[in-house]
Amino acid sequence: MPGMVRNKQVILKDFVSGFPKETDMYMTESSIELKVPKGSNGVLLKNLYLSCDPYMRPRMTYIEGSYVESFKPGLPISGYGVAKVLDSENPEFNKGDLVWGMTGWEEYSLITAPHLFKIQHTDVPLSYYTGILGMPGMTAYVGFYEVCSPKHGECVFISAASGAVGQLVGQFAKLLGCYVVGSAGSKDKVDLLKNKFGFDEAFNYKEEADLNAALKRYFPEGIDIYFENVGGKLLDAVLPNMKIRGRIAACGMISQYNLDKPEGVHNLMYLVSKRLRMEGFIVLDHYHLYPKFLEMIIPHIKEGKLVYVEDMAEGLESAPAALIGLFSGQNVGKQVVAVAP
Amino acid sequence: MPGMVRNKQVILKDFVSGFPKETDMYMTESSIELKVPKGSNGVLLKNLYLSCDPYMRPRMTYIEGSYVESFKPGLPISGYGVAKVLDSENPEFNKGDLVWGMTGWEEYSLITAPHLFKIQHTDVPLSYYTGILGMPGMTAYVGFYEVCSPKHGECVFISAASGAVGQLVGQFAKLLGCYVVGSAGSKDKVDLLKNKFGFDEAFNYKEEADLNAALKRYFPEGIDIYFENVGGKLLDAVLPNMKIRGRIAACGMISQYNLDKPEGVHNLMYLVSKRLRMEGFIVLDHYHLYPKFLEMIIPHIKEGKLVYVEDMAEGLESAPAALIGLFSGQNVGKQVVAVAP
Repeated sequence: MPGMVRNKQVILKDFVSGFPKETDMYMTESSIELKVPKGSNGVLLKNLYLSCDPYMRPRMTYIEGSYVESFKPGLPISGYGVAKVLDSENPEFNKGDLVWGMTGWEEYSLITAPHLFKIQHTDVPLSYYTGILGMPGMTAYVGFYEVCSPKHGECVFISAASGAVGQLVGQFAKLLGCYVVGSAGSKDKVDLLKNKFGFDEAFNYKEEADLNAALKRYFPEGIDIYFENVGGKLLDAVLPNMKIRGRIAACGMISQYNLDKPEGVHNLMYLVSKRLRMEGFIVLDHYHLYPKFLEMIIPHIKEGKLVYVEDMAEGLESAPAALIGLFSGQNVGKQVVAVAP
Repeated sequence: MPGMVRNKQVILKDFVSGFPKETDMYMTESSIELKVPKGSNGVLLKNLYLSCDPYMRPRMTYIEGSYVESFKPGLPISGYGVAKVLDSENPEFNKGDLVWGMTGWEEYSLITAPHLFKIQHTDVPLSYYTGILGMPGMTAYVGFYEVCSPKHGECVFISAASGAVGQLVGQFAKLLGCYVVGSAGSKDKVDLLKNKFGFDEAFNYKEEADLNAALKRYFPEGIDIYFENVGGKLLDAVLPNMKIRGRIAACGMISQYNLDKPEGVHNLMYLVSKRLRMEGFIVLDHYHLYPKFLEMIIPHIKEGKLVYVEDMAEGLESAPAALIGLFSGQNVGKQVVAVAP
């Protein structure tokens, strides 16, 4: 058929329980016409970068009433990405536009109901729109400024601190004049936190036999703000170390996503005795703030006041391993997959 | 010595671990002069009613950094009470004043640094100042109106619902036009909730093999507000049944106070997926609202729009059993001890 091209895809084999494996996904090749059906409102994308994010783990399982749709076994995985519009029947997008938003794990995607942002600033790396300028950036922004109610001089603790969101939360907190400590799972990551992102202190949670003691060491006066990315044991150790009227922004709990039954958290009584506020949030509810966010963050990037570390995997074939690696902490910085130059 | 009178007292024998017993306390008799030392700023109280409250359990143990001071082994227990001023060297209080606030578990108390409220309205039962007009009433008021951000028509769940605080939270919620369900631990209490306090529904948690199923039965659309008094398993069952952007006011966790290690709560990931806010509070931080609270609640009591059920134990000798009974749910309604007529 004329106009058809090869389209490599990453397919979810079946719903996953426990720790996901590369073999839960497979590569396939289909073909696609690089045109949008007339009058369909769709866009045809050439995918440039794909984003690997922790929230994708729950999508590999069927969860009743989840806030994100499950992937469909036998179909390509979907996720955030950066793409170029090759054809459009949608009045909001034109051929040649660069966009970011939900796309497929494949070379080309026909998106019938596009939820995409047009990329205006192209004098920054395009891959940033999977990270600092995309969903993780907005997550850090909303979680820190809107949920944590931060104040100059407060003591901030961030878990999974070198990840796509954590590295930014820490830098936002430093810009505000906070004392900032992060935890991560390797020496390399701890070095990044201290030497690249300007955290005051950082530690490798895997090397701390007593998390409570580690937190007491870095926060002898207690924690005002905990930016929660991991859940489980670390949350349990944080609660007794919070200051009175401390705030916990619950962004995610990656340590729990592969467990059949999440770990129990025992220290919730500290919510009462320390008058803590623990609040979950989802970036999807806050995208109306995206223009305001861009206005703040673009100059900071250009002036070098904010830096961002990406872990770039090359080629769609590397995507399954890159995604799986998130859950054992293989990535150093934001995990991206470069699909096309 | 002239002017000395007998003073019966309830003494804490030693710090308690696990479930407290009546024998952790003992009665003794000392003597006291019914005069305040000149220039001391103190008041001399004749105690009329003493209040048994769940927060007193943590005070029976030494807890580092607790928000309430531990009792002192060998000395009388202290707690909220209603009393008459017999003598005063404090400019704020006069002989004959009726007051409520922190006093001792004894017939007469010399309070050297009084934190007491003068009772203005005496056309209601004086014992109410240990309950609906005292600390539990303020707790219900602050927790519901200030922490829960309630709105007309919302779905409200209250645990320990027939207790000193719960019975009021439910009635506040009904006044606001909410749908209100309470849980309690006996048929009598469930009957009270439905027939006396006007809850829409109530259930006996001890008769529900599956708390999740019970909550789904009463809240098919989910819970907007959970007023948390118990913690543990019930909290774990509530979390998946919350609505998106639901609120949990953490007032106390009585089911956990006698455990060496609190139960684990496994469902905290719902804080993220449902964007929940869970917030602890302590009434001590909010007493500046007391005049506003009284202005609202006194007319409601007089007009019969709010009712209050007390469980009255007679005589100081009955106080240890009354306090211990709280932790096995013996009390039906607010537990008070009448010390003197």
